[in-house]
Amino acid sequence: MRLLIIHGPNLNLLGEREPSMYGTQTLEQLNTCITDEARELGIAVRCMQSNSEGAIIDALHEARLNCDGVIINPGAYSHYSLAIADAIRSIAIPVVEVHLSNTAAREEARRISVVAAACRGSVAGFGCDSYLLALRSFAKKA
Amino acid sequence: MRLLIIHGPNLNLLGEREPSMYGTQTLEQLNTCITDEARELGIAVRCMQSNSEGAIIDALHEARLNCDGVIINPGAYSHYSLAIADAIRSIAIPVVEVHLSNTAAREEARRISVVAAACRGSVAGFGCDSYLLALRSFAKKA
Amino acid sequence: MRLLIIHGPNLNLLGEREPSMYGTQTLEQLNTCITDEARELGIAVRCMQSNSEGAIIDALHEARLNCDGVIINPGAYSHYSLAIADAIRSIAIPVVEVHLSNTAAREEARRISVVAAACRGSVAGFGCDSYLLALRSFAKKA
Amino acid sequence: MRLLIIHGPNLNLLGEREPSMYGTQTLEQLNTCITDEARELGIAVRCMQSNSEGAIIDALHEARLNCDGVIINPGAYSHYSLAIADAIRSIAIPVVEVHLSNTAAREEARRISVVAAACRGSVAGFGCDSYLLALRSFAKKA
Amino acid sequence: MRLLIIHGPNLNLLGEREPSMYGTQTLEQLNTCITDEARELGIAVRCMQSNSEGAIIDALHEARLNCDGVIINPGAYSHYSLAIADAIRSIAIPVVEVHLSNTAAREEARRISVVAAACRGSVAGFGCDSYLLALRSFAKKA
Amino acid sequence: MRLLIIHGPNLNLLGEREPSMYGTQTLEQLNTCITDEARELGIAVRCMQSNSEGAIIDALHEARLNCDGVIINPGAYSHYSLAIADAIRSIAIPVVEVHLSNTAAREEARRISVVAAACRGSVAGFGCDSYLLALRSFAKKA
Amino acid sequence: MRLLIIHGPNLNLLGEREPSMYGTQTLEQLNTCITDEARELGIAVRCMQSNSEGAIIDALHEARLNCDGVIINPGAYSHYSLAIADAIRSIAIPVVEVHLSNTAAREEARRISVVAAACRGSVAGFGCDSYLLALRSFAKKA
Amino acid sequence: MRLLIIHGPNLNLLGEREPSMYGTQTLEQLNTCITDEARELGIAVRCMQSNSEGAIIDALHEARLNCDGVIINPGAYSHYSLAIADAIRSIAIPVVEVHLSNTAAREEARRISVVAAACRGSVAGFGCDSYLLALRSFAKKA
Amino acid sequence: MRLLIIHGPNLNLLGEREPSMYGTQTLEQLNTCITDEARELGIAVRCMQSNSEGAIIDALHEARLNCDGVIINPGAYSHYSLAIADAIRSIAIPVVEVHLSNTAAREEARRISVVAAACRGSVAGFGCDSYLLALRSFAKKA
Amino acid sequence: MRLLIIHGPNLNLLGEREPSMYGTQTLEQLNTCITDEARELGIAVRCMQSNSEGAIIDALHEARLNCDGVIINPGAYSHYSLAIADAIRSIAIPVVEVHLSNTAAREEARRISVVAAACRGSVAGFGCDSYLLALRSFAKKA
Amino acid sequence: MRLLIIHGPNLNLLGEREPSMYGTQTLEQLNTCITDEARELGIAVRCMQSNSEGAIIDALHEARLNCDGVIINPGAYSHYSLAIADAIRSIAIPVVEVHLSNTAAREEARRISVVAAACRGSVAGFGCDSYLLALRSFAKKA
Amino acid sequence: MRLLIIHGPNLNLLGEREPSMYGTQTLEQLNTCITDEARELGIAVRCMQSNSEGAIIDALHEARLNCDGVIINPGAYSHYSLAIADAIRSIAIPVVEVHLSNTAAREEARRISVVAAACRGSVAGFGCDSYLLALRSFAKKA
Repeated sequence: MRLLIIHGPNLNLLGEREPSMYGTQTLEQLNTCITDEARELGIAVRCMQSNSEGAIIDALHEARLNCDGVIINPGAYSHYSLAIADAIRSIAIPVVEVHLSNTAAREEARRISVVAAACRGSVAGFGCDSYLLALRSFAKKA
Repeated sequence: MRLLIIHGPNLNLLGEREPSMYGTQTLEQLNTCITDEARELGIAVRCMQSNSEGAIIDALHEARLNCDGVIINPGAYSHYSLAIADAIRSIAIPVVEVHLSNTAAREEARRISVVAAACRGSVAGFGCDSYLLALRSFAKKA
Repeated sequence: MRLLIIHGPNLNLLGEREPSMYGTQTLEQLNTCITDEARELGIAVRCMQSNSEGAIIDALHEARLNCDGVIINPGAYSHYSLAIADAIRSIAIPVVEVHLSNTAAREEARRISVVAAACRGSVAGFGCDSYLLALRSFAKKA
Repeated sequence: MRLLIIHGPNLNLLGEREPSMYGTQTLEQLNTCITDEARELGIAVRCMQSNSEGAIIDALHEARLNCDGVIINPGAYSHYSLAIADAIRSIAIPVVEVHLSNTAAREEARRISVVAAACRGSVAGFGCDSYLLALRSFAKKA
Repeated sequence: MRLLIIHGPNLNLLGEREPSMYGTQTLEQLNTCITDEARELGIAVRCMQSNSEGAIIDALHEARLNCDGVIINPGAYSHYSLAIADAIRSIAIPVVEVHLSNTAAREEARRISVVAAACRGSVAGFGCDSYLLALRSFAKKA
Repeated sequence: MRLLIIHGPNLNLLGEREPSMYGTQTLEQLNTCITDEARELGIAVRCMQSNSEGAIIDALHEARLNCDGVIINPGAYSHYSLAIADAIRSIAIPVVEVHLSNTAAREEARRISVVAAACRGSVAGFGCDSYLLALRSFAKKA
Repeated sequence: MRLLIIHGPNLNLLGEREPSMYGTQTLEQLNTCITDEARELGIAVRCMQSNSEGAIIDALHEARLNCDGVIINPGAYSHYSLAIADAIRSIAIPVVEVHLSNTAAREEARRISVVAAACRGSVAGFGCDSYLLALRSFAKKA
Repeated sequence: MRLLIIHGPNLNLLGEREPSMYGTQTLEQLNTCITDEARELGIAVRCMQSNSEGAIIDALHEARLNCDGVIINPGAYSHYSLAIADAIRSIAIPVVEVHLSNTAAREEARRISVVAAACRGSVAGFGCDSYLLALRSFAKKA
Repeated sequence: MRLLIIHGPNLNLLGEREPSMYGTQTLEQLNTCITDEARELGIAVRCMQSNSEGAIIDALHEARLNCDGVIINPGAYSHYSLAIADAIRSIAIPVVEVHLSNTAAREEARRISVVAAACRGSVAGFGCDSYLLALRSFAKKA
Repeated sequence: MRLLIIHGPNLNLLGEREPSMYGTQTLEQLNTCITDEARELGIAVRCMQSNSEGAIIDALHEARLNCDGVIINPGAYSHYSLAIADAIRSIAIPVVEVHLSNTAAREEARRISVVAAACRGSVAGFGCDSYLLALRSFAKKA
Repeated sequence: MRLLIIHGPNLNLLGEREPSMYGTQTLEQLNTCITDEARELGIAVRCMQSNSEGAIIDALHEARLNCDGVIINPGAYSHYSLAIADAIRSIAIPVVEVHLSNTAAREEARRISVVAAACRGSVAGFGCDSYLLALRSFAKKA
Repeated sequence: MRLLIIHGPNLNLLGEREPSMYGTQTLEQLNTCITDEARELGIAVRCMQSNSEGAIIDALHEARLNCDGVIINPGAYSHYSLAIADAIRSIAIPVVEVHLSNTAAREEARRISVVAAACRGSVAGFGCDSYLLALRSFAKKA
């Protein structure tokens, strides 16, 4: 099983950005965690990060050709990018949304996810563990 | 580590109720799955089900005395029970919300969870696996 | 044909409660009317009343095992209990919503019924006759 | 007792129009059913159909002179015709609203009835039986 | 100066309809009052009443050929008939809206007038005098 | 009959302020018109202008002691001053709201008048004639 | 192929009504253009205009018996006539909505079309060419 | 004078639950305070606590038989329980709502009280003193 | 302890204004009641009334120099005066909001208090006793 | 005449993506159709596709230098990209919006087009023909 | 160039009021800063402060006679005073709105400024520098 | 002090785009003005422009490493890009939002700035001077 991990806008600053909200682990460290856990589960993962809505759509499209699924943290795009939601609906492979923070407990504008509505499921609020739980959701299906 | 698993309203009909939405597994079978997975993770679980908002609040209160955490599927109460949300805020132990279906993709009234806003995190959309992923989120913290 | 009649919150005070809105007939008298009409139609009815959302859900669940249909007056729960609506969707037998008063003519918050959305149909505004018309809707189907 | 039955817009296409929603019975057949049932109940009925809001108002006005009540299926006018609602409030005789389908379970814009707010009561969701139950509501009052 | 007076839906029942709200004067009596007052002001008036939105639009169109202005009481159409508002915008002659009751003091749905937005001005709340004041507004302009 | 004429905020700049909307007549000239017309109708008028919500309330209160009615142009206060509306409800004498412009045709925030809801009626859109028509509405009642 | 062209309310004043918005071509001239273009495309067209919601519904119903499609400019009815939308859903032949002006660029109340929601497609903003483009959409299907 | 004191959901955890919001006094201590103050005022009080909406309705119903009034802290039910509001309207004795915190200063969803709308009055924001002031409101009436 | 009592707009007409809503006691009589009760509680009070938002803000500012607290009945300003709310937040002394009527049971626009959100607490619905209970809330704190 | 055809996000997957909604024709096939039709109309077209909001804005800007008009299918950007709308307003050449599906008939969030508000007109609901009709709208203008 | 500086409600407490939000500088110190900066720029300034909406309107009116522009900090009036907005529109001289805090980042009710909509521009979020920047905006125009 | 100046979408067309709204100065000329003013103030500036949301986020991230602050004109992104707002919150250096036009006076959708909510302050409505004033806001802080 091959999965693509997409980190959306501002996640390149992980560890540095509002650490009280998002923790002190860097994106590199998070990717190492993800890769380690994936290896144990027999999953091949590739990780990418982009701040561009268009580049994320491109990545989702390409994933349909060479991946079995996608784990996406759409960051703030989660709340308004109908275009990313459409991209997810355009591809046949399953996509799972993750969030580091518990978006249900944040300000009004961040409680609705137009992206999650196009996904198979979502995991939110467990910090970096959100990614690992999402990984495992694929392992359970395999 | 001891966890309480709370199944909210209508989950006693699992397997029989709208199977295209919720699957064919019964609550008893689900509880067996949960218990087996928990045993492997070294977690002691107790499962309960109630259709009553008040009984669920009572259970949350009692859990603070003899459990280390709670996994709750509040069913439809998720969307309007400020009282259950307050109960979760009233107790010191962590609570994780789970849903069988992907509530973000359902009708308007089911997209907001006032209960999740009081939880540590949430897992939704993976059928019965949602519970197992939530269990694992506690194992990761342990 | 066996039917369960569920009287929701505050209907135990019928005859005493806001008589200009709900009339002077007591719940006992109403139940006698219902039973008499049912006997004529060849329907066996059982009546219950509860102020508890959970108990109403329990009764709906149990009805699926020993009744052919349900007539429910959900009272104020009509307007916010997604949990009762889910209970109705969870059971295979038909459910009809009744209201004593014409809810369409009352204040804003009482104009939408989330419970009726899960029922086969609804009858409202005919006082105690609302129940008798609902009974007859089952007779017509029988 | 004399009653006027008003079928509103598009009901002339009954049997042909979206049969999965509205059934296969034609308006003529429905009128025969209504007339038969009325005869048994000792009620004289006259049936009319119009697609015009103004003609429906005219009919309501005229009914106040030669009828003891009205059964109206306002079709889509139910949701926005304050003018029909005013007509009902302008006449002294009782009016009952009927709908073939369960409007509470349909899309948002069809959940509120400004016409029902001016009626004595409403019956919805029982297909053609909705009319027969409304007939009987008058018999009960007689 | 020639004016057309348009009485909208349900005004034919004036005197009979909800007299506590609209008074006991009949439409015929009102038309006599209007005609008398107009004569004194040197204005020729023609009065019509219709319950039909389309007929009211037709009358407005025709008025542009043989009248110098229109006084319209659009009744309930006031609140939703964009088509009547467009008709008023389509003709070059001035139109004044009148209401018997003080619509600003009535229920929410009657506080906005889409028709008045297309008129030169409006007079509301003076019972039958609303028409006489509107007449005079034309006299003042003459 | 004695009437108080209250000109609300910014009306002291009449003739100078947005003349395309409000005309070129000054407040002094308007007051002369009003006084002349009133004299003909046998009405004694006193005119005042204030930009202060509190002063307008004071004037309304005082008017109940020495006037038979009030004509008020509340200007922008029309749309949000519940306090002026309360003042009008607090006094027994009739109050009529006037506006120079046709508020129904202006932007959203100016379409609702909380003040008019407390008045006997309203006249809007006739420029300075709005006041004269309001005067006459009192003459008709006298 | 036979098509019915329905011009809705106020379109009979085309050429005369707000020419800066709707142009100077009369309805008769427009109908000539439509007929000429249709002849070239091998389509037989019949044109009608009505200001009445009910008459438009009647025409749509009749068209199902002797036409292969309808092009409708519902004018202002576009924005609130659920009854016309229902009529379109009631007939099997395809219907295309046209507007002379670009309704998306007009005021709030004209941005939503409940009628278009029941059509196969819509063309707006090209003046009289909107009709010709709609004609061609049928030619393409033929 | 006999009063029933109803403590709603989560108040059994008083002293333990979010002490920065609700203080450190326990429910038992609060009940002692209330009883002492009542004794001084010559009022007999009985205190109960329940997390169940249905049980609270039952208690309100019973109170009408053996109490002269009720003081209720409906907790979170305050904001959505139309059923409790109906129960209060169903009984003849006066009911006063109290809140420990100043709900007007809390998040949006807690600013409206559907329960208070059915009460005689409300006291909020004085911590445990809210109850004592409510007690005294009854003493003043006695 | 010295307290300032602020009576907001229209309260000078107490006893005369809508007596069915506000009672027949005059403001002078109310002030006597307040002064008497205060004397018993060992509190020195000064009473003022103003219809002006600005004067009320001035009074609040001045109170911070020579009072230990304020009791304010902001009347209709309660619902929209962010400026009074800011004034309360600008001063260090505690402020309590009172209302004669039960604002939660009144029309929509009067259910939210932007002023109460800036106060320590509120008392509503007890007529003139609302002030006396507010006085006592200070005594309890003293 | 030279036109730029801009295909927005996810249109590169045409033919593969939700074929029941968007048909089975690929983007390449669509471009061939467009080019053929254009050739017949004597129009030179260039086609591009991008998933990036910024790249689409760049393309619009560039088009102003070497094209006479633009046909744009903004996909999901249609509903929230004020930036693309601004780009269209920034350039002097006419732009026409096209949609494959009838967006007016889709879910709430897709009924408003902020992009269309900046265009000359729009064509929606004709599948690939939407583009051809738009092409023709330019031919008619030429 | 002569400018009027208007400080709105509660600004007289500057330095004392919520210093974490508004800083510790007093109004007097702020006025000195403004005067000094103005002198350097060759601008004559006069400063006033008022808590009264009416007095602020009076000041704006007077400014049109002896000033070349106004800098106004309307405080909380910014969000609801249509009357002040009208006053600004009534005078020919330019007005600039300033805010000490960044109102766009504050609670919902403070994000819209009805006053700014009537101004030439606004400066917010720079503390006392907001005024100095506004001053300079006039210098640049001079 | 080093500052980055970010010009958002469509600003490359400055001088050419809707000159009545945005003036005739080109971006190059504006950058010269900014650079000149900055030199006088002893600030080193670098200017960039991009139409891409992702590229703007990248630039903000990079600025945190080599600049002391940022002046950003987010153009239309101002109103919906939560992702740019997050980027600003992710970096420690201060950011100031500028707009050429007075966004508060423009259409509804442009009155809220989600980007400004993350900035230190904003300047709007002064044309190109908005940038110079923002520059100066940094000089004042230095």
